[in-house]
Amino acid sequence: MFDEIHEECGVFGAYRVDNAASITYYGLHSLQHRGQEASGIAVSDGENITLQKGKGLTVDVFQKEKLDSMVGRLAVGHVRYSTAGGQENENIQPIVSKGHNGSLAIVHNGQIVNEKELRIELENEGAIFQGTSDSEIILHLIQKQKGTLKERVMKTANRIEGAFSFLVMNEDTIYAVRDRHGLRPLSYAKSKDGYVISSETCAFEVMGIYESVDLKPGEIVEFHKGIVKHEFYSTNTDNHMCAMEYIYFARPDSVVEGINVHAFRKATGSILAREDKDLHADIVIGVPDSSLSAAIGYAEEAGIPFETGLIKNRYVGRTFIQPTQAMRDRSVRLKLSPVSSVVKGKSIVMIDDSIVRGTTSRRIVQLLKDAGATQVHVRIASPVITSPCFYGVDTSTKDQLIGAQMSVEEIRDYIHADTLRFMTEEEMKEATHGVGLCLACFNGEYCTKLFSYQEELDK
Amino acid sequence: MFDEIHEECGVFGAYRVDNAASITYYGLHSLQHRGQEASGIAVSDGENITLQKGKGLTVDVFQKEKLDSMVGRLAVGHVRYSTAGGQENENIQPIVSKGHNGSLAIVHNGQIVNEKELRIELENEGAIFQGTSDSEIILHLIQKQKGTLKERVMKTANRIEGAFSFLVMNEDTIYAVRDRHGLRPLSYAKSKDGYVISSETCAFEVMGIYESVDLKPGEIVEFHKGIVKHEFYSTNTDNHMCAMEYIYFARPDSVVEGINVHAFRKATGSILAREDKDLHADIVIGVPDSSLSAAIGYAEEAGIPFETGLIKNRYVGRTFIQPTQAMRDRSVRLKLSPVSSVVKGKSIVMIDDSIVRGTTSRRIVQLLKDAGATQVHVRIASPVITSPCFYGVDTSTKDQLIGAQMSVEEIRDYIHADTLRFMTEEEMKEATHGVGLCLACFNGEYCTKLFSYQEELDK
Amino acid sequence: MFDEIHEECGVFGAYRVDNAASITYYGLHSLQHRGQEASGIAVSDGENITLQKGKGLTVDVFQKEKLDSMVGRLAVGHVRYSTAGGQENENIQPIVSKGHNGSLAIVHNGQIVNEKELRIELENEGAIFQGTSDSEIILHLIQKQKGTLKERVMKTANRIEGAFSFLVMNEDTIYAVRDRHGLRPLSYAKSKDGYVISSETCAFEVMGIYESVDLKPGEIVEFHKGIVKHEFYSTNTDNHMCAMEYIYFARPDSVVEGINVHAFRKATGSILAREDKDLHADIVIGVPDSSLSAAIGYAEEAGIPFETGLIKNRYVGRTFIQPTQAMRDRSVRLKLSPVSSVVKGKSIVMIDDSIVRGTTSRRIVQLLKDAGATQVHVRIASPVITSPCFYGVDTSTKDQLIGAQMSVEEIRDYIHADTLRFMTEEEMKEATHGVGLCLACFNGEYCTKLFSYQEELDK
Amino acid sequence: MFDEIHEECGVFGAYRVDNAASITYYGLHSLQHRGQEASGIAVSDGENITLQKGKGLTVDVFQKEKLDSMVGRLAVGHVRYSTAGGQENENIQPIVSKGHNGSLAIVHNGQIVNEKELRIELENEGAIFQGTSDSEIILHLIQKQKGTLKERVMKTANRIEGAFSFLVMNEDTIYAVRDRHGLRPLSYAKSKDGYVISSETCAFEVMGIYESVDLKPGEIVEFHKGIVKHEFYSTNTDNHMCAMEYIYFARPDSVVEGINVHAFRKATGSILAREDKDLHADIVIGVPDSSLSAAIGYAEEAGIPFETGLIKNRYVGRTFIQPTQAMRDRSVRLKLSPVSSVVKGKSIVMIDDSIVRGTTSRRIVQLLKDAGATQVHVRIASPVITSPCFYGVDTSTKDQLIGAQMSVEEIRDYIHADTLRFMTEEEMKEATHGVGLCLACFNGEYCTKLFSYQEELDK
Repeated sequence: MFDEIHEECGVFGAYRVDNAASITYYGLHSLQHRGQEASGIAVSDGENITLQKGKGLTVDVFQKEKLDSMVGRLAVGHVRYSTAGGQENENIQPIVSKGHNGSLAIVHNGQIVNEKELRIELENEGAIFQGTSDSEIILHLIQKQKGTLKERVMKTANRIEGAFSFLVMNEDTIYAVRDRHGLRPLSYAKSKDGYVISSETCAFEVMGIYESVDLKPGEIVEFHKGIVKHEFYSTNTDNHMCAMEYIYFARPDSVVEGINVHAFRKATGSILAREDKDLHADIVIGVPDSSLSAAIGYAEEAGIPFETGLIKNRYVGRTFIQPTQAMRDRSVRLKLSPVSSVVKGKSIVMIDDSIVRGTTSRRIVQLLKDAGATQVHVRIASPVITSPCFYGVDTSTKDQLIGAQMSVEEIRDYIHADTLRFMTEEEMKEATHGVGLCLACFNGEYCTKLFSYQEELDK
Repeated sequence: MFDEIHEECGVFGAYRVDNAASITYYGLHSLQHRGQEASGIAVSDGENITLQKGKGLTVDVFQKEKLDSMVGRLAVGHVRYSTAGGQENENIQPIVSKGHNGSLAIVHNGQIVNEKELRIELENEGAIFQGTSDSEIILHLIQKQKGTLKERVMKTANRIEGAFSFLVMNEDTIYAVRDRHGLRPLSYAKSKDGYVISSETCAFEVMGIYESVDLKPGEIVEFHKGIVKHEFYSTNTDNHMCAMEYIYFARPDSVVEGINVHAFRKATGSILAREDKDLHADIVIGVPDSSLSAAIGYAEEAGIPFETGLIKNRYVGRTFIQPTQAMRDRSVRLKLSPVSSVVKGKSIVMIDDSIVRGTTSRRIVQLLKDAGATQVHVRIASPVITSPCFYGVDTSTKDQLIGAQMSVEEIRDYIHADTLRFMTEEEMKEATHGVGLCLACFNGEYCTKLFSYQEELDK
Repeated sequence: MFDEIHEECGVFGAYRVDNAASITYYGLHSLQHRGQEASGIAVSDGENITLQKGKGLTVDVFQKEKLDSMVGRLAVGHVRYSTAGGQENENIQPIVSKGHNGSLAIVHNGQIVNEKELRIELENEGAIFQGTSDSEIILHLIQKQKGTLKERVMKTANRIEGAFSFLVMNEDTIYAVRDRHGLRPLSYAKSKDGYVISSETCAFEVMGIYESVDLKPGEIVEFHKGIVKHEFYSTNTDNHMCAMEYIYFARPDSVVEGINVHAFRKATGSILAREDKDLHADIVIGVPDSSLSAAIGYAEEAGIPFETGLIKNRYVGRTFIQPTQAMRDRSVRLKLSPVSSVVKGKSIVMIDDSIVRGTTSRRIVQLLKDAGATQVHVRIASPVITSPCFYGVDTSTKDQLIGAQMSVEEIRDYIHADTLRFMTEEEMKEATHGVGLCLACFNGEYCTKLFSYQEELDK
Repeated sequence: MFDEIHEECGVFGAYRVDNAASITYYGLHSLQHRGQEASGIAVSDGENITLQKGKGLTVDVFQKEKLDSMVGRLAVGHVRYSTAGGQENENIQPIVSKGHNGSLAIVHNGQIVNEKELRIELENEGAIFQGTSDSEIILHLIQKQKGTLKERVMKTANRIEGAFSFLVMNEDTIYAVRDRHGLRPLSYAKSKDGYVISSETCAFEVMGIYESVDLKPGEIVEFHKGIVKHEFYSTNTDNHMCAMEYIYFARPDSVVEGINVHAFRKATGSILAREDKDLHADIVIGVPDSSLSAAIGYAEEAGIPFETGLIKNRYVGRTFIQPTQAMRDRSVRLKLSPVSSVVKGKSIVMIDDSIVRGTTSRRIVQLLKDAGATQVHVRIASPVITSPCFYGVDTSTKDQLIGAQMSVEEIRDYIHADTLRFMTEEEMKEATHGVGLCLACFNGEYCTKLFSYQEELDK
């Protein structure tokens, strides 16, 4: 799935923490894998909210001078992957509203499925939108409601449907909110002097914090006057953590719903191997980086040596690809190199975490065979992707999903694998030890109404 | 050794290849691990040599427009790690001289030990130096000699002593030269339309080339009129490939003197395990990225599970570190995270490739123990570093080398490891199957006179 | 007044013109003197509106690639001078709203005096503001109204009070609107293939257009389906063109309300000289650039040679000024140099267009005396500034205006002039041949209610 | 001549001055009109020389941080206009050589005519050149000579022929050298704490210094141990100050060989008017900026009003010009606007300082006629340019000089002027009160041998 799938965000917050902007900067660093195209931080010094944001990695957007100028003990930050149509600066988060009664800053991870309906409703009532991000809708809804800020945030959370984990900050308070299906992760932890909030727990360890609390589906957590209060804005909740968080997005050192991501991945490899009793391969390799854990698990269970058969080029980032066919064909080589002395003359089990369009898998198999592999047995550490995601993952439309267009045998033939096998949904569940999962991209069972997206799906 | 040791360069050349500058750009990409601070390419269209260079990664220095403007079928390129004293633009390579009879471009990997003596001699004869790089000395020497360009290059190679692999290009010819001790690697390969030359073979595979030829110690290879000619400029040769190329620098998919680097590293892990029959640990982990191969080898031999106990943050690059003690202490955390659910309650064998100053090893052991490891047994896949390198590796001076100051037991105590073991020189040789190695940093046996550096060493 | 006073904007529009973004780029160029801190262009291709904006001069914000990517035949653009508190990116214009029924782009020159009241009203009705610019208020008001876009724009123009010349563009139409007092200029002209709209006529001549139409106070002009329609949104109009447009802001080649700016300035010099029958000076000099025309007029009328006694450094732009007192004292020298061979031993009439705080005038007089001038008679080509401006000119607050704090004689003494004279209001009117002027900064007679600014004024 | 002619440099030095790099930065500012494409400063703290340089205006190359890092009390700096073939970074000055006995920094204004011969000679003796600048040759020659640094500099000055004003700095001494024909200006002045050296005196006034000393032709001035020593390296001297320094390059506030540049220009206008007794025009205008002084002089003598008929756009700098014929035709409009209300219906005398290719003059005349001028009488404040310059002015080759190809009447016809007159050489000399001038571009009488350039000239 190398390079073919993207999540859209990570959020981080710091409450009553010295140098909150710097702490948020380090936090965003640890979440950078969730979004590399834009980054922003809003900081409050108790009276004013200052905003800085821009395109690029967090290190590129924030230099020392900029961080030093952001004084305050509350902050919220965001890293973003932007889909093709939304790279405008207007959509970079945090989004801040400046009113005569104060300011609000919001950062958001996820996707609101009734976004279109809400947008039309709000516009008909006189709202204007400068960008196309969900966050602007959330801000508008909060502004429209009556009551205290907490009441307005809770009413807003009840108006929006879909996947969301968002933070709202005013001059002296932060609210953390998670959708009632628990589609996206959100946790917080006690730091030495205050609290830190993060999409993933890996960001806490940078600060030397090893214990954290997950928000529950439908929960809002208030950080106010030094006190943390939990409350549910909805009792109509269920448990549907996005399976892709385990399979691909989250960092291996993160713990999602109590399950360590590396451990999960290793377990999937182990389960895959269990069914391959009769496969006699020479070595097991994984597609770096996300499939290495599964490959290790497979190798251990199967008793076949785990090898480094593919090397990922760490510096390939924004490499310009020469617009010739020959070079495009080589583009996968710029990112991945086969270790020919490892794979030459070998029968290989190659573990990948998923197949989206199939083109990359096809190129990798070809790479291995060009380098001398005699057989390539592809094992995918997740079920077949058959449906698009409307909860914040950019997996293309149905007609681009190879799993929606071909049978497993046809896919095997297309990618030139000798054999190909995917995990089953049951095996996935086994690996998560019963954590409630959203498997919509595998089985088309969406846990919410899809509103305007239903049409798109029906096409 | 994570982040504590640096080589100073990688070179790449393209002879009679379409879009030679683009090909060199891709080549430098694959060599980027050998130098990230500056990058440059000189291209010849047969009549003129055009030069572009700058600070930063190859992708940052060369954008599409710049590459498009570099027309020609011959090119030489360079990636550079610059030591503290030499970050000036004057030292970024290629260095080009423009004369009334034509131009010369040079790129160089290595370190010339009689550099100071040559510099004084040349200055006394009227030469001026604009920078402090060895390459400028080589250019001056070539200019001083009499005869054809090839003769002048050969005489120059005989005047300089030390570690060097360099390329010299004029409008229509490239010469590739390797020092007579074979201290630095240099190889070339046939491409579809011409030839490519590289410090490491990994750069060839990007172009779909799986076969290459290593230059021998003391050899000069001429690429002229479409013909490749091998010749020896010296018969006084020996075989002293830098052991660190295998241990740390080279990419795992490179083949150095016929030995694949990943295979070598795996073998070192295996050898380490062989001596640990009585050690009963729960898991084996490696310090990413360079020690993973050795850890895999150790785990396989020992029959202990290989685990991903440490995660490297891929985006940490130029992260600004807050100048407070607390933050400096955290800086290793920004780069490496322990996977606490993996290491918690475990007795661990941690494989690292080397120990330079000991401070990083100490921090990593601490990180693992903080995350709950019960025991950390450190195994180093190379001997104790006791001497500085004068052949192009930046390993600090003797007084900063922990191995020159402490016994193994003292080091173990300093880094808080439960047990610590290094490889022996004999084991190193076993892993390279008899390839002649320079082990000077381990045993102080330098294969050349050290000239002015002898003094530095004697202090 | 050199460097002490700033207007806040210039607007440009292009309707049904090939390469509308490029034409707007050239137009903004000619308006760059009205704002150098930020620049932006929105272009419509008939279906979508694309926005690009950023900090800096138009040439810095827009390079060839960016302009080439902005396809369409309708465009609006803006150059901006931003006051201290509002340099955020959120305030850079155009501001674009994106709705389900289409997008709107707005650019605005001027200042709305009931801005605070409207902002509170809109927020109470649920609006959120991301920035502090008036343009966002105008967009919100348009969104709130009912009816066709033209009706909504007209209703909006009736809701806002103050100085404004704004353009509103949707996918296929542009509306140009001027406030009912005519405080800020706005004109349009027929180009070869369509229409161009500009704050100043100087922008038309770049395109070879020598004839243009001024919008009248209270007028809205619709550019739709290739047709230009004039209409009045209000009949309650009067004529109060900002006198500072003539005195300082506008380019000498612009024609404002039928009067050429250079001709106006020359006339003021002439009038000043008329009253100086008994002053026998050696030479007349002007403070560059804005006071040269007046100096020429004075010299001609007085029969005293016009000389270049002060040179302006064209490259001083963003020069970093060393933070020492000595250097700050020198800062005016970096920008202006006396021509000592011209001024030495001379009795000088120095024409300046206005005095704001007096510090710069004081430094310039000192400069001339240091360079050897025997006498410096300062003549100001406008009346004494005694009141702040609330219509878009950044003249500081009342307590910083030297004319509000001191008598003319006290000012003369403060700036070390030998004699000092200002123009009278009657003389100003004479120079404009009866064009209705806003002279509020000279006489405190504001042509609108001041709303919340009244308070500020009363302090 | 607007935009068609370029000089190649300005030099500045500071000796025993606090913050020498900052002072040099301000000095280069005042010399920026002599070169806008690159800028550099080398500073010595008594032990080491630090170099910073780059493309662009001085303000763009040097920010606060960079200046702050350049500690020392000696400095030399350079601004550069680079001809088409030499924009490489290698040619940006200062050029610094780093030797085992110390470093030398050099900055140079002018052009060496025996450059090619010296380059070949030096290369044959083993020198290598990294760039194509004359400064590198000077450095090589200094290195080659025997004796003290002063002796070596003096010998070098005797080896090179042509136009040169250069500064050489080592760790504790600066030498200033001017060619024996006095082709380029060079002056120094006492500052509060030391000495400053500059191509033009205008740079001194920024520092509040109104007295300075010109170097004489063939002179070398040594700044050493706090003492200033004058000496002649050659007695074979003559006086040939470049006439173009007065006509076009120097800033009006500079004093060159005792003559103020503005006064010179005004005198040329006056002389031109003297011969126009029978011409009855309505107004006199000058082409900004360099021809305004002459226009003022003409108007005064002729008793015809001086008017601002053309406005120069101050922000046009790096404006991207759309590559269509229509836009190229407009490009002069982007830079110059006619004030139509001034020129309409008028018979105009238009003063320009020179005509190079004629294309710009032709466009300006057209601009004025398009704007309604009834007659345009062009008067050029210098003789006809008929020969190329080899002393540092970029006036194109002979076949591009309209004055070398056409008679005055043919030029008049080509540029569509009603009448056209140039000054005579005698009139030029009158305006300079007997200062010895190089008039080679007007009369082909070069004051030196031309060496390899003779060939170019003979073609």
